[in-house]
Amino acid sequence: MSTSGRGEFGEAFATDSGTGTQRHPWMAPLPVEGDPLAEGKLLVNNSLTGRKDVFVPLKGRTVKWYTCGPTVYDSAHVGHARSYLSFDILRRIMTDYFGYNVLYQVNITDIDDKIILRARQNKLVDDLKADKSVDFGALSALADEAAQASKEDLFAKREKLEQEVAEFESAGKKRDLEEAKEQLNMHLQKIEGFDKELAAIEAAKASETKDREALVEAARGVLSKKLDKEKGASITDHDIFNAHARRYEREFMEDMAALGIREPDVLTRVTEYIPQIIDFIKRIVDKGIGYEAEGSVYLSLDEFRKEHNYRKLVPAKEDTSDAQLEESEGALGDANAQAKRNRNDFALWKASKPGEPAWDSPWGQGRPGWHIECSVIASDILGEHLDFHAGGEDLKFPHHDNELAQSEACFGCQQWCSYFLHAGHLNIKGLKMSKSLKNFITIREALATHTARQLRILFLLQPWDSPMAYSDQKMDDAVKKERAFRSFFLEVENLTRGKNYLDEEVGWRMGATDHALADAFLATQETVHRSLLDNFNTVEAMRAMIDLVSECNKYLKLADLQPAVLLLGRIAVYVTQILKVFGVIQGNDGFGFSGAAATDAGAAEGASSSQQSGEKFAEVLVSFRETVRNAALSAENKSDPALRAILQACDQIRDETLVDMGLRLEDRPEGTKWNLEDPESLRREVDQKRAKEAQERVDKAKGKVDTKEKELTKWTTALTPAEELLRTSEYTAWDDQGVPTQAAGAEGPIPDSQRKKLKKLMDKQRKLNADLAKKSNGDPDAYLAAIRADLEKLQADLAKLEAAN
Amino acid sequence: MSTSGRGEFGEAFATDSGTGTQRHPWMAPLPVEGDPLAEGKLLVNNSLTGRKDVFVPLKGRTVKWYTCGPTVYDSAHVGHARSYLSFDILRRIMTDYFGYNVLYQVNITDIDDKIILRARQNKLVDDLKADKSVDFGALSALADEAAQASKEDLFAKREKLEQEVAEFESAGKKRDLEEAKEQLNMHLQKIEGFDKELAAIEAAKASETKDREALVEAARGVLSKKLDKEKGASITDHDIFNAHARRYEREFMEDMAALGIREPDVLTRVTEYIPQIIDFIKRIVDKGIGYEAEGSVYLSLDEFRKEHNYRKLVPAKEDTSDAQLEESEGALGDANAQAKRNRNDFALWKASKPGEPAWDSPWGQGRPGWHIECSVIASDILGEHLDFHAGGEDLKFPHHDNELAQSEACFGCQQWCSYFLHAGHLNIKGLKMSKSLKNFITIREALATHTARQLRILFLLQPWDSPMAYSDQKMDDAVKKERAFRSFFLEVENLTRGKNYLDEEVGWRMGATDHALADAFLATQETVHRSLLDNFNTVEAMRAMIDLVSECNKYLKLADLQPAVLLLGRIAVYVTQILKVFGVIQGNDGFGFSGAAATDAGAAEGASSSQQSGEKFAEVLVSFRETVRNAALSAENKSDPALRAILQACDQIRDETLVDMGLRLEDRPEGTKWNLEDPESLRREVDQKRAKEAQERVDKAKGKVDTKEKELTKWTTALTPAEELLRTSEYTAWDDQGVPTQAAGAEGPIPDSQRKKLKKLMDKQRKLNADLAKKSNGDPDAYLAAIRADLEKLQADLAKLEAAN
Repeated sequence: MSTSGRGEFGEAFATDSGTGTQRHPWMAPLPVEGDPLAEGKLLVNNSLTGRKDVFVPLKGRTVKWYTCGPTVYDSAHVGHARSYLSFDILRRIMTDYFGYNVLYQVNITDIDDKIILRARQNKLVDDLKADKSVDFGALSALADEAAQASKEDLFAKREKLEQEVAEFESAGKKRDLEEAKEQLNMHLQKIEGFDKELAAIEAAKASETKDREALVEAARGVLSKKLDKEKGASITDHDIFNAHARRYEREFMEDMAALGIREPDVLTRVTEYIPQIIDFIKRIVDKGIGYEAEGSVYLSLDEFRKEHNYRKLVPAKEDTSDAQLEESEGALGDANAQAKRNRNDFALWKASKPGEPAWDSPWGQGRPGWHIECSVIASDILGEHLDFHAGGEDLKFPHHDNELAQSEACFGCQQWCSYFLHAGHLNIKGLKMSKSLKNFITIREALATHTARQLRILFLLQPWDSPMAYSDQKMDDAVKKERAFRSFFLEVENLTRGKNYLDEEVGWRMGATDHALADAFLATQETVHRSLLDNFNTVEAMRAMIDLVSECNKYLKLADLQPAVLLLGRIAVYVTQILKVFGVIQGNDGFGFSGAAATDAGAAEGASSSQQSGEKFAEVLVSFRETVRNAALSAENKSDPALRAILQACDQIRDETLVDMGLRLEDRPEGTKWNLEDPESLRREVDQKRAKEAQERVDKAKGKVDTKEKELTKWTTALTPAEELLRTSEYTAWDDQGVPTQAAGAEGPIPDSQRKKLKKLMDKQRKLNADLAKKSNGDPDAYLAAIRADLEKLQADLAKLEAAN
Repeated sequence: MSTSGRGEFGEAFATDSGTGTQRHPWMAPLPVEGDPLAEGKLLVNNSLTGRKDVFVPLKGRTVKWYTCGPTVYDSAHVGHARSYLSFDILRRIMTDYFGYNVLYQVNITDIDDKIILRARQNKLVDDLKADKSVDFGALSALADEAAQASKEDLFAKREKLEQEVAEFESAGKKRDLEEAKEQLNMHLQKIEGFDKELAAIEAAKASETKDREALVEAARGVLSKKLDKEKGASITDHDIFNAHARRYEREFMEDMAALGIREPDVLTRVTEYIPQIIDFIKRIVDKGIGYEAEGSVYLSLDEFRKEHNYRKLVPAKEDTSDAQLEESEGALGDANAQAKRNRNDFALWKASKPGEPAWDSPWGQGRPGWHIECSVIASDILGEHLDFHAGGEDLKFPHHDNELAQSEACFGCQQWCSYFLHAGHLNIKGLKMSKSLKNFITIREALATHTARQLRILFLLQPWDSPMAYSDQKMDDAVKKERAFRSFFLEVENLTRGKNYLDEEVGWRMGATDHALADAFLATQETVHRSLLDNFNTVEAMRAMIDLVSECNKYLKLADLQPAVLLLGRIAVYVTQILKVFGVIQGNDGFGFSGAAATDAGAAEGASSSQQSGEKFAEVLVSFRETVRNAALSAENKSDPALRAILQACDQIRDETLVDMGLRLEDRPEGTKWNLEDPESLRREVDQKRAKEAQERVDKAKGKVDTKEKELTKWTTALTPAEELLRTSEYTAWDDQGVPTQAAGAEGPIPDSQRKKLKKLMDKQRKLNADLAKKSNGDPDAYLAAIRADLEKLQADLAKLEAAN
């Protein structure tokens, strides 16, 4: 785009229309010179120079941009969001505001020591948890041992760090001292976190329930370390590492989507580029800058420095600190480190030990070093030169400096990347958020208390390249700003709705206050533009927009105002457009003609909001289903498999799919009724209905068993002939028909009245005998066996139903 | 924004981080020099120089832009849309693509001779229509008189124009001759149009119904002129003029909205600025450049030329032609013209005669001249300098040149406006669309046959500053382009829906074809950018995007493709964004947080933004319908009425219900594809498909009628017995079998060879007789009657189908 004007004209000069006609002179407006921002130049805080440089793409307006993605070994926390959300804002400004042609690549590290270690540890601890032969007592002892070992490690490291601090202090090495102090400080935080872990283990051990699983979870941290040390080498199945990485890769992408972060244009994974990585390393070895040692390959800094500069990003020191070397080596360490020519040399390729995934290579079984992936895959996708390389502040050294060295070595160039961007840390109460410090909040937790929009506003209100505070106060401020924009939009919407300015009696003349508003609007746009040019200064841009909103509010409170609705509408559209650029308002990420309806004449007369469209679709869906279902139910031949399938689909969509979408359907004789509900309670309701139906089924089966049992009792009783019925030890004498005349131990004969009753009993039994003979066709045993079989079947059915509940 | 890179680096130079640490050297990428477009400079076709000039705003990035609005005296036609739609596209590119801070003003001319005249005429003719005392006969006589008068005027003018042509021809004034010839040509067209008017009057007069009102309407044109000449001065009520203007002002704004033209930031009306206009004229008079004569005020060109240049836009001639003077004077003429010091001087203020609205002024009762309003109101709103002034090609002279003179005179400056933009004409069959030529199509008529989107695409496919063709062929091309974009969006939507790229088994590695696609994407963006910088060359930008869409289609047809869905999605978003900039897709004109719901955490968890829920329901509906349809199609007994009803419901929801909701379904062998679209164009597409199907049904019915007619002819012929067939007056003698032996008037008998042929004819007829006997079961009359009955039925069917179309 052209540079901006400075309010003057050049010399008048005559021009020719090309038709040979002499024209009157014209004076060209003069562009600004000497002020980069007014000239329209974009300034970028470039970590390679430590200052704001004018941004110029290497070719045309194309920006090849590589951002280091996550190592997918655990859930992402808000500290991760700091980088990805900040770069998302920068990328949106670059493409959607400045109109650069950005090709944005993110690479996922799906093979790395942390992944290997975590996957192995999880596997080992889970195995222990499943192994019931280790009882609660044994587990407690194991946890104690593991905790003791971890404690010793932590204290040993503290001692070492304290020594370092003391040494640097006495030697007066101020810069080193600061670094060492920070390391120590962080370690002390870690020890503090460890105390909480110990307390949790003690609580689990002392719990009355003696819950094995709870104890394993409480002690997972310390057990992981212990078990891995002992058995880590036994884990060799690649799938374990892969599955672990894929799980957190998907979670990461879901988190990014929840934060409204635009998907990259190109997304890559390290494990899909092993052949390219090996080729890249070979080229470095062929140039004599890389060398093999004990199956690993290292970059020789002595060789590299002959023609290149090392540590462009963090040039402070020549030597790499122990902590940084440790970080560079990875969580599994480097067993071959002593084979290096120079202690500062770093691994391009690492020989794999047992328990570590490995690929074939000219140097034996191994895997890529930590830094090489970015050099290789960025170059594969974006070519041998990057315009932007971005990452978190903590990746500057060793990771990014080593990337630069690898790429310059391979391509034989002096500058692989023009501009390096580093987002500042995210701090909670002044401390960097980090997993090892256990002061982190996962992205999901953060999104449970604030919306993605509010989080994004928080980011916009702080500079992208400085440490950022994540605090209640800052969040409150973000929420307040959101509210200010919302109520402004509401005001303007109420003013512009219905296009009342076209009413005959409404005057359009612009008075002094209207002119002042127009001026404020133009001034705001200039400020926003200048701010964004100035190293993406969203803080200033947001302030300017909030000020404009306040101006509008003041304007709207003026007495006797005939408001300039078109101008206010335009201001609202402008603020919306900038908030869209920032990703605060959606609308720049979709594609297709949809949503375009209102441009068209027909649609303009009744275009429906998407809210309506959800309900409208529901209505259409319900009515279509009803038509289909009624047709199927009215068919003569309902046993046709096609019709059966259709009716089944009708039931399934009602009971499954639509329930999950919060659409309740009830098929009633008079038609299908529906309403929209929240899916969770609808699902609960359906579950309750199902449980009730299941209970009814059980009750019914129980009833059948009861009935059958009664039947069995009855006919078993019927086996006794009537004349035998009362020939028991209760009586001592009977008449010829078998009716008792004398009860045992009684004085005198049985009175007549009682004998009558006994006779009746015998008559009843006689009838039963006859019934049984008739029912059983003369084979009572077979008849009873059949009843018994039926009963068993019914009991089995009942058991099945009860088990299913 | 910064200039673009040329692929080289500058010298390496050491930089300082500001902390005093020495850094390694850095090489700045070098910007392009010498190629304005590559430098990012915007070129604009500037009518003030007749060439493309680099655009530089006078101050910052603010663009003060004034566009002449319509004179609201009648409905707007597509020729008007040419200017407003073209400038809408330019304005959108300036703000939404290049990010300039445009303040866009449109001024409505709501007081003007054409409005006065039309309002007066309408009032007089309407009064006549309402006056029942004038009967049909009297009206007829009046119409004849009026027509005669109009005819005489037209012929007198033709004579005058012919004389002018002859004069210029003999004087060899080539340039003047051309102009005069064009004037004559246009006048001849007008006369042609008048003939049609006369015919309509004659028809109304001859009508048996003797409808008074119909006659008035047919003769409205000629009656208007006659009545106004006689009674125009009697109309003095201001409200009549006002109401007329307000009516067409609202209609104009509605038309602009229907075309998707963005509302101006500031909209003004002349009648609200009379005091400012008087002040402005006073300043010119005070400087001695304006002078009063007979209650009117004129600008003295002789005075003006002493320190300024006149006719900057059309510098060809020093003298103003009669036609242009007439145009400048307005439709009511200038009774005081003879009082002017120089015939080329033009009116700033016009004394009002009776029947003309008037305001008080230092020079008596009067009204603003035609040109003054733009100078005054543009300056009131935008200040004493404009960056852009835009208008239709035909306003260049006298209107715009006079505006420039007025403003320079008032402000004492040499250049009131930096860049003057003139949109080309719109032509129908090579002729400019214009009301006086009666070859115009109103905007509403145009929107009845094509959507606003299709019209806009038509505009984008032709340069904004050249004559534009509005033809069926060009419209077809626009519709084709729209379809290409739509089907591309459909493909990508079906690929990206559901984010399947996150599935575990999907690989992400980019192969050679993926890289080629990325390269094509970047190249397209460069081309689009360069094209838009080059005087808003949307033709080239559209071509580049359509080419990119073709590349994507080719890519998607590759065998064994694991498509790069993120990249394709990004391409679709880019194309959408540019189409949004062009106004082809809506989304850049709304404001507020709505539609942004999906960013929010709650939404991500399933509370569902309405947008999402609409799409989700659509997905469920489509899948349910597919299940039902496939089941029904796979049934063995498809003739079951229930299944037939179900399949019909499946078709109906696709072709009716969902079309109205903007959900397009396509049943393909591989499954049902769907996407959301604007209902209006979807409906139109379906209508076209239906019309085609209906035509096919008519054609089929016609075929059946044809066949049946042939059958009838054949069997009617077969009624004649073979032996009778040749017993005609052509022959005079026959053998016993009825074969002719002697032809009438011939010498000698019929030769054998010919007799053989005749015999064959008879044999054929014999066979026909036999066939008929067999077919008709011995009752040929009944058989033929049946055929006739069939034919009648088929003809009736055909008539019904034709009537339904």
